[in-house]
Amino acid sequence: MRPIAILGIGQTKIDEHWDKSLKELAGEAAFAALADAGIQRADALFVGNMLSPLISGQNQLGTHISDWIGMWGAEAVKIEAACASGAAAFRAGLTAVASGEIESALVVGVEKMTDKAGHDVTSALATAADADYEVDQGISFVGLNALVMRRYMHEYGWKHADFAPFSINAHANAVHNPYARLRQKITLEQFEKSSMVATPINLMDASPIGDGAAAAILVPAERLTGRRIVVAGSASATDSIAVHSRREPLFLSAAYASARQAYAQAEVSPTDIDIFELHDAFSIMSALSLEACGFAERGQGPRLGLDGQIRPEGRVPVCTRGGLKARGHPVGATGMYQIVEVVQQLRGECGKTQVADARVGMAQNIGGSGATILTHILRAEN
Amino acid sequence: MRPIAILGIGQTKIDEHWDKSLKELAGEAAFAALADAGIQRADALFVGNMLSPLISGQNQLGTHISDWIGMWGAEAVKIEAACASGAAAFRAGLTAVASGEIESALVVGVEKMTDKAGHDVTSALATAADADYEVDQGISFVGLNALVMRRYMHEYGWKHADFAPFSINAHANAVHNPYARLRQKITLEQFEKSSMVATPINLMDASPIGDGAAAAILVPAERLTGRRIVVAGSASATDSIAVHSRREPLFLSAAYASARQAYAQAEVSPTDIDIFELHDAFSIMSALSLEACGFAERGQGPRLGLDGQIRPEGRVPVCTRGGLKARGHPVGATGMYQIVEVVQQLRGECGKTQVADARVGMAQNIGGSGATILTHILRAEN
Repeated sequence: MRPIAILGIGQTKIDEHWDKSLKELAGEAAFAALADAGIQRADALFVGNMLSPLISGQNQLGTHISDWIGMWGAEAVKIEAACASGAAAFRAGLTAVASGEIESALVVGVEKMTDKAGHDVTSALATAADADYEVDQGISFVGLNALVMRRYMHEYGWKHADFAPFSINAHANAVHNPYARLRQKITLEQFEKSSMVATPINLMDASPIGDGAAAAILVPAERLTGRRIVVAGSASATDSIAVHSRREPLFLSAAYASARQAYAQAEVSPTDIDIFELHDAFSIMSALSLEACGFAERGQGPRLGLDGQIRPEGRVPVCTRGGLKARGHPVGATGMYQIVEVVQQLRGECGKTQVADARVGMAQNIGGSGATILTHILRAEN
Repeated sequence: MRPIAILGIGQTKIDEHWDKSLKELAGEAAFAALADAGIQRADALFVGNMLSPLISGQNQLGTHISDWIGMWGAEAVKIEAACASGAAAFRAGLTAVASGEIESALVVGVEKMTDKAGHDVTSALATAADADYEVDQGISFVGLNALVMRRYMHEYGWKHADFAPFSINAHANAVHNPYARLRQKITLEQFEKSSMVATPINLMDASPIGDGAAAAILVPAERLTGRRIVVAGSASATDSIAVHSRREPLFLSAAYASARQAYAQAEVSPTDIDIFELHDAFSIMSALSLEACGFAERGQGPRLGLDGQIRPEGRVPVCTRGGLKARGHPVGATGMYQIVEVVQQLRGECGKTQVADARVGMAQNIGGSGATILTHILRAEN
């Protein structure tokens, strides 16, 4: 595969954007990325989105957005892989440029979730689970994650407060990210006393929904001289969609497989990763992700939080821009926010949460409760 | 781009499959393709589907299906481009193999439409149009096509019966296709006296919905010696999603652009095309597609039907297995049915509707009323 570089990035603030449509949000991020890249348009558009047929009544989102942003005539397509739609769209754009079929790709992850009432969104999110064997029993998506967390706590002896550092770190970092939805710190007491959603997951374990879009431009690396950010590793793997069918429900096998592949492609090991934007949709997922990717032993993920290793100055900085928990989780856009944030770190643009000398960054995007997982490794090259 | 060949194909009959779920249909086509290719699994799965979130409450269909068919762990993703989802998934699989990231791709187009009542399906199909500017006014998808057809008849002076040969040819060919939904001939009288849907489109102008799946296996062409079917051209283009925004509402600019690109890649011209599986969702689309691809002058598409040139023995054989009109139109699967049917023709497996000495075949898949159009050219090589 020919080497690919990221020429530009863009994002919108995550918020309740009741005054902006889906395409307007996508356009805002796309125009920012095009401007950042210094180009007018790309050869093709790849859109990551999960919910627009259900929430906005709009399919064919690739063409809908290419039309809106003035990329008239260009190839355009939508990729959906539940909450991993953003990274899946990024990988589709990546392989398309790598194949030589196109010379530049604009990838946009976009989601609009706050226009409808809570029940609609909860039902829509449940389509990420197995409709026949899980959702038909009445379980919600947070309910599934709660079952996993409860089992994990039982199996490894952790108590709820042990997960607090994940959320506290995410909120502390979001304060310095102007694009984040929840820009306030939280305390251990707030974490423990927060309203219950589905035992043992409370509001402070769960990431908030939101409206937002993030975008990147991909081109062959040979087009760039001087400092550049290249895609050093890209891999996608899957697990059984229904949690009860998993061989090991407490191990993210698709995170393990995709990370291992990405490490091999980038010729790095976990110790080489300077920053890791992981998929903390729920605090339990932070622990599982760190374990599957080789940063902690099985069952020991929370230890990294308790020891302060996940902070920007720690050994494995995660959620340096707020993560899903505090930056917000507009589901189909999240994977692209992670890519954008890793690029910001590698460029040294993160101010108070900048990781010193960041050269290699990893982004991991999870669809369903571990069913589809993509891992990307980016590297700053001189 | 390294040359890619089609190693195997599979399909289900299009029908009201009330006894089979979405994944079972996909599995049936996938297993047939894998068996035809003589392999157990592929490196990755690309699923084309439009309606499953709306009709079946299931997202993350790539993983849902890879899980079901035993491709546990493999990369899997869903691509959506309205009724062009099938060909868009095919192109995603194609570029992924061409990039060298994977060595084999299983592409499945699948749709399940008949489990719900008519209103639900009509609303779901309307998500292919512009939600803000078209659907919000209350227009259905067939209504949009009716406006185009009425204008075309007015502009070029055709009467309704002039479109009959498209449907009569499709039905006559479907009689010989065991996978087709409507395997009966129709007469000119039946065409003219059929129930009106949206003036001037009557039931015999419109393709029927259905449940079905079609699949293909893509590998690097170098893996095959001897006779092989290669992808000689692949292109995707778009137009404004709302018909009223089009510069020329009676010209399929995205068909023109994608066909022109595909011709150039394959180094052929329209006269070299032995068989053309076009997207006859409505009879008007047959005429527009033939014109945009260079088989007829603007406004003269119906002439090819009236002169018998579209029949298997004619100059431009179309819908040789029944087309959307009689084989059926399970929307997200249709693009893959077209690919499968072109392969069958190039292999010489089409019996009474076999086109003599077919060496070069074209498939064109349309999303929305001309908004997203993909053109693929396949060639039989010895």
